[in-house]
Amino acid sequence: MITTTFQVSLWIELFAASLGGIHGAMFAAGERRRRLDVLGVITLGLTVALGGSLLRDIVLNQPPVVIWMNWYLVAAAAAAVLGMLLQPLFTRADGVFTVLDAIVMGVFGAIAASKALALGVGPTGALFVGVIGAIGGGMLRDLILNRPISFLHVGTLYAVAAGAGVVSLVVLLLLGAPIVVAGVVCVAVTTLVRLGSVFFGWTFPEQRAVIHPREPQ
Amino acid sequence: MITTTFQVSLWIELFAASLGGIHGAMFAAGERRRRLDVLGVITLGLTVALGGSLLRDIVLNQPPVVIWMNWYLVAAAAAAVLGMLLQPLFTRADGVFTVLDAIVMGVFGAIAASKALALGVGPTGALFVGVIGAIGGGMLRDLILNRPISFLHVGTLYAVAAGAGVVSLVVLLLLGAPIVVAGVVCVAVTTLVRLGSVFFGWTFPEQRAVIHPREPQ
Amino acid sequence: MITTTFQVSLWIELFAASLGGIHGAMFAAGERRRRLDVLGVITLGLTVALGGSLLRDIVLNQPPVVIWMNWYLVAAAAAAVLGMLLQPLFTRADGVFTVLDAIVMGVFGAIAASKALALGVGPTGALFVGVIGAIGGGMLRDLILNRPISFLHVGTLYAVAAGAGVVSLVVLLLLGAPIVVAGVVCVAVTTLVRLGSVFFGWTFPEQRAVIHPREPQ
Repeated sequence: MITTTFQVSLWIELFAASLGGIHGAMFAAGERRRRLDVLGVITLGLTVALGGSLLRDIVLNQPPVVIWMNWYLVAAAAAAVLGMLLQPLFTRADGVFTVLDAIVMGVFGAIAASKALALGVGPTGALFVGVIGAIGGGMLRDLILNRPISFLHVGTLYAVAAGAGVVSLVVLLLLGAPIVVAGVVCVAVTTLVRLGSVFFGWTFPEQRAVIHPREPQ
Repeated sequence: MITTTFQVSLWIELFAASLGGIHGAMFAAGERRRRLDVLGVITLGLTVALGGSLLRDIVLNQPPVVIWMNWYLVAAAAAAVLGMLLQPLFTRADGVFTVLDAIVMGVFGAIAASKALALGVGPTGALFVGVIGAIGGGMLRDLILNRPISFLHVGTLYAVAAGAGVVSLVVLLLLGAPIVVAGVVCVAVTTLVRLGSVFFGWTFPEQRAVIHPREPQ
Repeated sequence: MITTTFQVSLWIELFAASLGGIHGAMFAAGERRRRLDVLGVITLGLTVALGGSLLRDIVLNQPPVVIWMNWYLVAAAAAAVLGMLLQPLFTRADGVFTVLDAIVMGVFGAIAASKALALGVGPTGALFVGVIGAIGGGMLRDLILNRPISFLHVGTLYAVAAGAGVVSLVVLLLLGAPIVVAGVVCVAVTTLVRLGSVFFGWTFPEQRAVIHPREPQ
């Protein structure tokens, strides 16, 4: 059982936010079709960087760290600018994109679930909050870009990866493992499941084992 | 006037969440075009089940019941799985869909509006919160599926049904009626108005009485 | 430095909400393609009127003014009805639309940023909250209508205008200027930048100085 409040390390959260900012800006820069201006690209970077953290704190009814911590926004914005500038370099390295995304998802899942447990939320609620923290940034990005939500569709394993990581963290913490161990396992499990789906084609059963010829939208 | 705090019965809320979960999963299963995986279907079930309740508590600045109550998530998830499994049975019974949806909308409207009144919100604010609670789940579902929001479009009467139910509840409570009576009337009014629009073609005046040949998107 | 809590004038907020309501309803009435019913139009008016204020208070973890203040909702709804009725008159005056929108954005930005500062949020956080307050109504409107988010796209300068206004307010307040002066400057800067983009074609650099032949969606 979690007996004492768990202090989320600021450095971890800043690091995750920066990764999110880089990834978001790179994603935006890849969406040439939409003609975003520079501020639009930075906004998307901030959305991916802050989205999970912001939704987590709103859902937990806590003052959002994102707003009360000046460095958080500065780090995410700087990372978004960096991501935009470096994007041409990374275009060929498509895998970097995917790996960054998976790690950020794991880190935010671990932070969100452990913050929920520290506030006295039960295991089920912590799982829910953890998944929101993990996929919230990507979900807001997709909502704002008016595109289909990635985590809902077959073959991405977004939600499965986030859920598996958070479940492992919650179980480890309930068994008495130190938070650092549980957090690292959460990030590792999330990253492995997500990358497995990308590189080895792992999938979760579709609601019907039927091939539908038409694509979403 | 509401003088004492009103305790929302947990059982009613769990029941509504379960109905929402079943309905959401059935809805998702009907969206074959989008190729959702099993977890995507459950996610949609949870969204419909929890959406209204979550938005209500966020807007009221209260710790969300959804997260602090373990049974809530468990019941909604179990119901979503059930809805997915039973979906083939229900495909022919399209009306069940609609009736479930209408009842859930009424129940969540009643819970949300009475919770707002119990917290000291005025009648207008309670109406607003009640409508958010009633249609929040469906709205989040449509947002996440990237489809037009149902309640905005001509011929659905979603918002009208939710609004009529909540207005009747608020007026009855202000006149001193017991909460049980007011709640039942709210559910009945919402259900009747919504089903009237579906089965008898009731509509609310369009902004212009002109026939527009093109369909929304 | 802000030393005392700053009381946002209710009248200013009611005025901004009413402008937002008029503008939202006029916008909705212009969307003939979508066949909104009368309540849908009012809902959109309320969304534009209340969206920024509601998101601001949620993000600040405060009880939303929108709900705890009865007059707020009444004023916004009445304004939305007015906007719907007057819409035929204004159809030819397309510029009124744009000017209203720009002013409302500036007012909500000023209110949100100063409220954040008064609660002890730092300058960066206040900038973030200010921009959310300024563009939140329009963003929710676009989300609900399932259309591309205006502020992200090249040539609108929405976010730039909101950001420039809020930055000027925060800087002026940090330099010790009275809130009224800072607020008026914020509204003026926002309005000028926004209108400059509309009437003089000001733009912000696109992420790549390349002409993309395809339009967004």
